Amino acid sequence: MALIVQKYGGTSIGDAERVKAVAARIISRIEAGDRLVVVASAMGDTTDRLIALARGITEEPEPRELDLLLSTGEIVSSTLLAMALRHSGHPAVALSGAQAGIRTDRRHGRARISKLDPKRILQELEAGHVVIVAGFQGITEEMDITTLGRGGSDTSAVALAAGLPAERCEIYTDVEGIFTADPRYVPEARKLKEVSYEEMLELAAWGARVMHPRAVELGAVYGVPIYVASSFSGSAGTLIHGGAAMEERNKVMGIAQDTDVARITIRGVPDRPGIAAAVFEPLGEGGISVDTIVQNASVERLTDLTFTISRHDLNRALAIVRPVAKSIDAPDVMADTHLAKVSIVGAGMTSAAGYAGRMFRTLEQAGINIELITTSEIRITCLIDESQVPKAVRALHKAFELESE
Amino acid sequence: MALIVQKYGGTSIGDAERVKAVAARIISRIEAGDRLVVVASAMGDTTDRLIALARGITEEPEPRELDLLLSTGEIVSSTLLAMALRHSGHPAVALSGAQAGIRTDRRHGRARISKLDPKRILQELEAGHVVIVAGFQGITEEMDITTLGRGGSDTSAVALAAGLPAERCEIYTDVEGIFTADPRYVPEARKLKEVSYEEMLELAAWGARVMHPRAVELGAVYGVPIYVASSFSGSAGTLIHGGAAMEERNKVMGIAQDTDVARITIRGVPDRPGIAAAVFEPLGEGGISVDTIVQNASVERLTDLTFTISRHDLNRALAIVRPVAKSIDAPDVMADTHLAKVSIVGAGMTSAAGYAGRMFRTLEQAGINIELITTSEIRITCLIDESQVPKAVRALHKAFELESE
Repeated sequence: MALIVQKYGGTSIGDAERVKAVAARIISRIEAGDRLVVVASAMGDTTDRLIALARGITEEPEPRELDLLLSTGEIVSSTLLAMALRHSGHPAVALSGAQAGIRTDRRHGRARISKLDPKRILQELEAGHVVIVAGFQGITEEMDITTLGRGGSDTSAVALAAGLPAERCEIYTDVEGIFTADPRYVPEARKLKEVSYEEMLELAAWGARVMHPRAVELGAVYGVPIYVASSFSGSAGTLIHGGAAMEERNKVMGIAQDTDVARITIRGVPDRPGIAAAVFEPLGEGGISVDTIVQNASVERLTDLTFTISRHDLNRALAIVRPVAKSIDAPDVMADTHLAKVSIVGAGMTSAAGYAGRMFRTLEQAGINIELITTSEIRITCLIDESQVPKAVRALHKAFELESE
Repeated sequence: MALIVQKYGGTSIGDAERVKAVAARIISRIEAGDRLVVVASAMGDTTDRLIALARGITEEPEPRELDLLLSTGEIVSSTLLAMALRHSGHPAVALSGAQAGIRTDRRHGRARISKLDPKRILQELEAGHVVIVAGFQGITEEMDITTLGRGGSDTSAVALAAGLPAERCEIYTDVEGIFTADPRYVPEARKLKEVSYEEMLELAAWGARVMHPRAVELGAVYGVPIYVASSFSGSAGTLIHGGAAMEERNKVMGIAQDTDVARITIRGVPDRPGIAAAVFEPLGEGGISVDTIVQNASVERLTDLTFTISRHDLNRALAIVRPVAKSIDAPDVMADTHLAKVSIVGAGMTSAAGYAGRMFRTLEQAGINIELITTSEIRITCLIDESQVPKAVRALHKAFELESE
């Protein structure tokens, strides 16, 4: 009798028929002998509709009230799923995040889970119930309802799997698993049987359609095996785990791309200590994640400082950076949004020779100019013109022979 | 600085514009120096839509899950109202029933408030916030969400006013107040400035459109003055209270009618002790409220037992009564739904002579046959054919000169 946490995404439970189909899937697992805790997202576009309701009232809804409002979406889907299970003769109970004991800090709209108090869940499991938990939400010590931000239901599911603990966490969504590249660009992309947490994180720019990086990180920290599969088909998905064998694999696992890139360059920055802090501290305080940072070699004690951020942060970032540039006598701030990232991803890859060279040569042969290069332990990334991303991904997929296992 | 509890009904906050209009009304009261706790119903037809969602899954939704589902409706409207107040610069906070400390028993779908723990509300008022409370809901000791059944938001409001305590409870709805008769039947019906709780309860068959009897009863028990007025117009409404002066008034206050009447007659009931209990105990256990009961004089130790119930209970009642009738050898059970009640209502009225006679004569002169008569302390009721209700109400309104004060 394994204890499993499952999570079903919004499209998987978009209407009454799909809710019933999910109930049937759950029942088949129960009948096979597993015990289930199921995390439900809001149905279809519910969250967007609730946000539109709030925006009909005010452009800047109070975060506390917005969280309380949005939390209703997952409660609706959870209760319907529990009803569908009962209707099929399987005792089930729906719990709000608060009832499920998901405690968070007070950061409304992007709360972090601080503690799981699984008493009620364990009690309901003990009573033989399938436990349906409203995802995306929790409760503070002050009894205020919070939401967990983007990918919140994935995070709820992994946190529950870590805290109960469950044998594994299964994420059912509208994609079939993790592929060697985005199938929209590379039709011959191959579904991976397994990836490491780190590889999944690096693939996340398009993998975010599958699962939020934050939930993958949480899985890595607590060692929760995460299985990602389609809620519509019966075909095998991808297992994300931290098995030692993978670290030795030493090959490219997949190609990632990310078109959400804005570049800011501060020209003529004085090359003296404290300048980087003067620029990046206020950005951090403004909640803006800076990705790649490049500082050119200094010419006459002046340098150019270039960094990339998410495109939707661009206006806020410029509002922060421009006064800073002025205060340090940098004459010019430039911004553009025509770049994108392509990456090759694989554990142990960067410690082996030849991968970087083959990547650069492949892009060159495809006539693609590389504007910036960055690397991590398991990734080599080139910034290129956004329009050339599909061509680059296809060329790299072929060069690293990812279509065959 | 009076503390006032207000309640706004579903049509009063049916869309974003109406939510903003209600916010403006609240602000004008705040600026006049009052402190407000505001109970919000679900917007427009939200509750019906949620019930339809549940019925799309199962004909018999689990009461516990249905309550959790329905509770989201009032949370949505409460958060939007709080946002609208904040948007206009007035600090406000939305609280679910659970957060507001509304504790109930475990009877899902028809829970009774067992306790109010007003700590959070008082704390928010102390902080200068308008407190918006989601109506219709509470929480059990086991942290399960309950709903209070029909008229639940009215009950929430009166319970809050009793428990805080507030100076009075104001119910804003889509009618202008309490009238001497249903204005649909009697165009010259006059709006009452004040009525007693008891009179309001007797007028409730059509007054239920205004306010649920249960909330009026709660107001009577705790002596909460309840002011009922339109949320759309600025005109004065009706104050429901228990003032001593009214008891001496000794006149007819209004005409009530109720078309929700089904009559059951058990023929040939043996006239011996225990028979009434055998019939009415199982009905009570089945949750069916019996209204008028009439037992005819016994002929050859056999009698007919007639009683009335709500029409939507008829099938359930017959399913209970038929086996009982068989077990006591009563040969026949008859049911019909063509009757309706008309009543004259007024405190102290029945202790004075002449009212009953004038009522019967008025109906007779209008050509209306009386099938049953019942009375209470402040009401005389005749059961007549449903088709004659409008004629009867008009005739009685005129006979008792209710169009003039």
